[in-house]
Amino acid sequence: MFITIDGGDGSGKTTQQRLLYDWLQSLGREVVLCRDPGGTRLGDKVREIVLGDGVNICGISEMFLFMTARAQLIDEVIRPALDAGKDVIADRFLVSNIVYQGYAGGMAIKDIELIGNVATGGIKPDVAIILDIPCGVSVERTGGRARDRMERKGEEFHQKVRDGFLDYAKKNPEYVVLDAISSIGIVEESIRNVISSRLGS
Amino acid sequence: MFITIDGGDGSGKTTQQRLLYDWLQSLGREVVLCRDPGGTRLGDKVREIVLGDGVNICGISEMFLFMTARAQLIDEVIRPALDAGKDVIADRFLVSNIVYQGYAGGMAIKDIELIGNVATGGIKPDVAIILDIPCGVSVERTGGRARDRMERKGEEFHQKVRDGFLDYAKKNPEYVVLDAISSIGIVEESIRNVISSRLGS
Repeated sequence: MFITIDGGDGSGKTTQQRLLYDWLQSLGREVVLCRDPGGTRLGDKVREIVLGDGVNICGISEMFLFMTARAQLIDEVIRPALDAGKDVIADRFLVSNIVYQGYAGGMAIKDIELIGNVATGGIKPDVAIILDIPCGVSVERTGGRARDRMERKGEEFHQKVRDGFLDYAKKNPEYVVLDAISSIGIVEESIRNVISSRLGS
Repeated sequence: MFITIDGGDGSGKTTQQRLLYDWLQSLGREVVLCRDPGGTRLGDKVREIVLGDGVNICGISEMFLFMTARAQLIDEVIRPALDAGKDVIADRFLVSNIVYQGYAGGMAIKDIELIGNVATGGIKPDVAIILDIPCGVSVERTGGRARDRMERKGEEFHQKVRDGFLDYAKKNPEYVVLDAISSIGIVEESIRNVISSRLGS
């Protein structure tokens, strides 16, 4: 099973990914965790560039950098793991580009979908979760940590990100939006329910 | 005028680009030289990764790295120069990806064309030159210098590259193929003839 967890900064993606990992393992499943961008040597180099400072990156190049990392992650990690019958949980995937570079960045969504399909070789998540939080809560939660280039893009940008996630999920009902303001335990429970219903089916 | 010079390794692209630059300047034109990938800080970082060693790069990621560098080059260098009425000469452009990652690397050419169109924002060369040399001559000419990751891909790969350039130019007659086995002076003359006929028209 290929599970992706997307959402705004501070929505608890990384925390929930870890909890889900532990739970799936406790069910006797083999699970691989990864983050996108990242997870390969090339992906880490790309992540450093795209989230770092000091280099001008136009919107289209930014999108291509994410696609570079994703294609390598698919090739080195995700496809081999799925082929071996393991579960994969990815911290962010294609929908983040659709929202950050498309809805918030102004690129044509159709272009990002087309390009994303080449990057992923057609591999789609079996369960695609979007953790939704209002921007104010996001700022509060991420305020205490060092912020990367994407996180520093300002309130208006992040409002477009949130609205983008909600709008895209509405138009593409394979994305499951979960309220992420609640406590960690409640969000964890909601995610387990979504996964359980897929495991059962 | 936007002029691109593509071709196999050792075909004399860089030499001819410089000669063309001098000639256009002598005609009183303002000219900008660039190489793709490269020409921007992001492009140089990407060039280092894609032509360097030590990192696994799958075919699709390789293509995306070139597109990343190209989109930034268009944004920072090529579009501003063209908008200011300058000529731009690029050492390699999109057709190199079509040939290296498509014809020789096995990716669908239609995908590379589509993605390339997003990367370039629809900017196309006014004059697109392909310098053609047989593989044997290419190996001879590049034998004396340190070879990068692309140059070391082996004879069969480079034969596909050469055949790819010729086939693509046949199907897309806006590409002008020039015989690059001849002396530097003769190739220079052929390029000037192509440019002159465009300048005259």
